[in-house]
Amino acid sequence: MPIDRLTRMPERDHTDRAHLDALLDTELVGTLATVSPDGEPWAVPIFFARDGDRVLVHGSTGAGALRLAASGAPVAFTVFALDALVVGHTTFESSANYRSAVLRGTMTRLDADAAASALDTLSDRLIPGRVAEVRPSNTRELAATQVLALPITAGFWLYKERQGQASDPDEPTDAWGGLVPRLITWGVPEPAPWTDADVPPSVRRFRPAPPA
Amino acid sequence: MPIDRLTRMPERDHTDRAHLDALLDTELVGTLATVSPDGEPWAVPIFFARDGDRVLVHGSTGAGALRLAASGAPVAFTVFALDALVVGHTTFESSANYRSAVLRGTMTRLDADAAASALDTLSDRLIPGRVAEVRPSNTRELAATQVLALPITAGFWLYKERQGQASDPDEPTDAWGGLVPRLITWGVPEPAPWTDADVPPSVRRFRPAPPA
Repeated sequence: MPIDRLTRMPERDHTDRAHLDALLDTELVGTLATVSPDGEPWAVPIFFARDGDRVLVHGSTGAGALRLAASGAPVAFTVFALDALVVGHTTFESSANYRSAVLRGTMTRLDADAAASALDTLSDRLIPGRVAEVRPSNTRELAATQVLALPITAGFWLYKERQGQASDPDEPTDAWGGLVPRLITWGVPEPAPWTDADVPPSVRRFRPAPPA
Repeated sequence: MPIDRLTRMPERDHTDRAHLDALLDTELVGTLATVSPDGEPWAVPIFFARDGDRVLVHGSTGAGALRLAASGAPVAFTVFALDALVVGHTTFESSANYRSAVLRGTMTRLDADAAASALDTLSDRLIPGRVAEVRPSNTRELAATQVLALPITAGFWLYKERQGQASDPDEPTDAWGGLVPRLITWGVPEPAPWTDADVPPSVRRFRPAPPA
């Protein structure tokens, strides 16, 4: 069924695909929720990549939630980014700046050729440029991996965000209010003991935190 | 129903409550998944706080997923922390260091007195010390908020993690391998235009990123 548009706080509702794509192209991990045959919710965090009008995920052929999704169980795929804590003049007026998406639908398992190509898309989303630096996946590796696609279809996704400063108090207050930005950065790469190769360009692209 | 223990990669399975609690006490946001009356998965990202042997969440009394959970629909609550990208000598051997938990059960809506106390617990989990700096919530605010609790019960939660370096290659390789650590830090607090108060101790505790 289509997702209902937001009835509460409609100002946080964005129907613009560009907002959705920007979030999906920034975050690496979402939560795949589905329903088991006996009606229980089943959810797993999972890496994903947007590829045009679909979301790709992959995992072992033994992964239960993926098998369930591949069998046609309906899914809700959630992606969330926390950008700042919003400190209000009261706890009630405190909030968070965030971007959030839920996509609904059913997933399709890709056939072998499509899966091999999609795995490269996933790998290059997580570590851009890595695919060209290493040998291709072999037959055994591809056979052990399933790749599923969730279409991004108008009416079946919901994007919400809150941005901006703490709301103006509607009462006299001496309290401080404002934002505490949350930052995601990458540390200096740590080589495994078995390698003496130079850090490759794909890894050097993960820039460490700038000086505070 | 109880959660099955992991059948794949049992070395990533931890039954020690201390691992679970450490994750729940570090992360601020989880994904609450439930099932609608017509059997559709429904998931929302949500702030939470562990309070002993339960997980607390709160939201507007109008929030659909919370109303569904409060009505007794089974839930799966997922918390995930991404600690590093693991760069293998192949894309197949690439992975991530992470900590992950799924808790299952049914939630209970707290009554008014318990909810007021639980809201303070939630607020002080997100911004420790903030409750003592601002006025208490008033009757109108409390009436607009519902608080739900999910018990942490042995057999109904699953904790997984991967830590450590990229696996040893099982073939000759010239490829680099290693970790790219992922770091969460806080930026310098940004006051709202309506305040000229000093940054309070609760907010000063969010330390900006150290120099790289």
